[in-house]
Amino acid sequence: VHIELINTGSELMLGRVVNSHQQWICRQLADRGFVVQRQVAVADTAEDIIAAVREALARADVVITTGGLGPTSDDITRDEIARLLNRPLHEHAPSLANIEQFFASRNRPMPASTRVQAMVPAGAVVLPNGHGTAPGLAIDVTPNPFHPAGTPSWLVMLPGPPRELHPMFSEQVLPMLASKFPIREEFVCRTLRTVGVGESVIEERIAPGLRPLVEAGLEIGYCARTGDVDVRLSARGASAGRVVADAERFVRDRVGQHIYGTGDELPEEVLVRLLTGRKQTLALAESCTGGFIANRLTNVPGASAVFRAGFVTYSNDAKQSALGVRAGTLAAHGAVSEAGAREMAEGARAQTGADFGLAVTGIAGPSGGTEAKPVGTVFIALASAAGTKVINPVNRYDRPTFKYVTSQQALELLRRTLLGL
Amino acid sequence: VHIELINTGSELMLGRVVNSHQQWICRQLADRGFVVQRQVAVADTAEDIIAAVREALARADVVITTGGLGPTSDDITRDEIARLLNRPLHEHAPSLANIEQFFASRNRPMPASTRVQAMVPAGAVVLPNGHGTAPGLAIDVTPNPFHPAGTPSWLVMLPGPPRELHPMFSEQVLPMLASKFPIREEFVCRTLRTVGVGESVIEERIAPGLRPLVEAGLEIGYCARTGDVDVRLSARGASAGRVVADAERFVRDRVGQHIYGTGDELPEEVLVRLLTGRKQTLALAESCTGGFIANRLTNVPGASAVFRAGFVTYSNDAKQSALGVRAGTLAAHGAVSEAGAREMAEGARAQTGADFGLAVTGIAGPSGGTEAKPVGTVFIALASAAGTKVINPVNRYDRPTFKYVTSQQALELLRRTLLGL
Repeated sequence: VHIELINTGSELMLGRVVNSHQQWICRQLADRGFVVQRQVAVADTAEDIIAAVREALARADVVITTGGLGPTSDDITRDEIARLLNRPLHEHAPSLANIEQFFASRNRPMPASTRVQAMVPAGAVVLPNGHGTAPGLAIDVTPNPFHPAGTPSWLVMLPGPPRELHPMFSEQVLPMLASKFPIREEFVCRTLRTVGVGESVIEERIAPGLRPLVEAGLEIGYCARTGDVDVRLSARGASAGRVVADAERFVRDRVGQHIYGTGDELPEEVLVRLLTGRKQTLALAESCTGGFIANRLTNVPGASAVFRAGFVTYSNDAKQSALGVRAGTLAAHGAVSEAGAREMAEGARAQTGADFGLAVTGIAGPSGGTEAKPVGTVFIALASAAGTKVINPVNRYDRPTFKYVTSQQALELLRRTLLGL
Repeated sequence: VHIELINTGSELMLGRVVNSHQQWICRQLADRGFVVQRQVAVADTAEDIIAAVREALARADVVITTGGLGPTSDDITRDEIARLLNRPLHEHAPSLANIEQFFASRNRPMPASTRVQAMVPAGAVVLPNGHGTAPGLAIDVTPNPFHPAGTPSWLVMLPGPPRELHPMFSEQVLPMLASKFPIREEFVCRTLRTVGVGESVIEERIAPGLRPLVEAGLEIGYCARTGDVDVRLSARGASAGRVVADAERFVRDRVGQHIYGTGDELPEEVLVRLLTGRKQTLALAESCTGGFIANRLTNVPGASAVFRAGFVTYSNDAKQSALGVRAGTLAAHGAVSEAGAREMAEGARAQTGADFGLAVTGIAGPSGGTEAKPVGTVFIALASAAGTKVINPVNRYDRPTFKYVTSQQALELLRRTLLGL
């Protein structure tokens, strides 16, 4: 199945917003065995939208557009596509009722301009919008005047706001796609998420041994970010399930202790799950990460059951008053030191009665480094009833990458301790 | 100038990563008066890359590609483009020396595969890479066999890693672009960043009065996110400077108190600047935002001069022990209450001796709401020598949006208090 994605929006071309739709839609499709061949972004102008849609219809079995279905003057995708395909628009009563209901339930008057969102091109399937006013639209373009062989295309228009697009795509578009384009071969995809080891090291350890499975149809993909690497194992055909399962077993055998989760799982989600299962609690003491780790943990629904408190102790005063770090320790070793990290972790644990105290202190940069402790120096300490462990990585990156990599190492230290690795 | 952008990478098409290059490059260009007409992403396959480049060369004056210049087997952009343009590759000695130096300075052996990055198509201008091994390449495609009118194109290939691409683009590509395509008309662009007021309200207040300036060439753009709106004022031609300055004066007159900054400025940067200038300090007490505000503040270099400490007090115990919130207050009003927020803010200030104590408590959801305090209920308190203010917005969003919007409101409360608004 040849799929193309067209994201419309002048704000994309002016660089005012990140195109999050591309990543989200491509990911949803890839995990079900569909691959997007091409993604295009254009401004909200008739000429650009029409050119992109015509060209995509000339190549693709499925064309998905996002944006331009709303009520304002720059929302022209529906009208332009209806004109391109010679499909007259008519008012769709259930969609109009949904718009009226949307405003009535919020006790807000319905602006006249919003009525246009109920206009539907002839022959289009309406995808109701459970979280907004503009419905999605799906058109079977048969015959397809733009394709050199006349091959039909399926054209799907989706609204721009993510909270409207995401459920519409998952609940309506994916099932339609799966029934229109049944995957004749089985497709199996498994993503193993690792932390603390480089892409090339993983490849060295697993690629040679996986060669026979690659010959049997296994595809291996590596996605490396600074601080972690995903290994994506996929295969098609009748033996796909066995091939991917064999590959996963082999990868776990070789680099299993670095694998913290699968699929989309995040380290903080794994930790909240592990701690909840064990009825254990955590307190944080962050200096150089400045609340980044606390923020990650509290992104997880249910974190309140395991996360007691976090202390963002940027100043030495705060390290002493909030965590009980001794003035003598700070004077003798400095705040960025093994002893400093240890007392922070133990202090966080003591102050809150948590089972674990996790502390981070370091020099994020760009300034503040010395010869003995260059920019990037980090001490991470984990205090528990069993004692306190300290690790000392050097993370020399820009500030946001520094925070991310350091937080990954801190969360991984806790995961390994919980699992006895 | 017709500019097109091609981002290559199979990880983009599989949705494993967000295409941050698109936003960054489009923004850099837009703020200098250049607009990208089309952006395309394709996988790292020869067929897809060549098709995208051919089509872009048939339309554009400038084609920019990102990715595919590295040393691994999926880095094929340089080779494929050299073949498409019939430009033989030769080894470029200074680039090879840079690669050797890159590894030598890190005391790492130079893998043989990295040598390929010094290969340069005939006639290409080499853009040295100060932060990595693969240089950028710029080719003047004259004559241009792909353009129907033979119009020359300028083809620029950039490396994928952002820390290599960003400085190369700013320091080398933008100046080359400005000299190759001198903007005949002056272009002036000014972005005013607002918080706490909706897009439609801003438009209502400013659009009618700006009509004469729009007739004189002013362009107004609104970029709304949940919680804030950017107003972009731009104009071209000899009177551009005056038109934009007049427009800014008018907008400031109408919605000035909502404007926290200009250009790319962030609220946390404005606050660190304001507090630093006043030699004042801040402490945070976060419940429902879970460290998000502390993380934002500590993203700003120099935050340590003004940020004393943050307390992420998720549990009632922590609110009492770390901040001195009274058990009676929690029992009588609950943790999510005006009194609770007030005591958290005052406690944070008292514990740290900071000039300001800023506290947030609320119900992020998805669960935890009651009839009296539904999901989205928030209390934000700011304690200072002048007393304590509390505001009580209702932010009913998904969890990440909730944290973002609440943090914007908290930072804005501090900004307005600092400026006496």
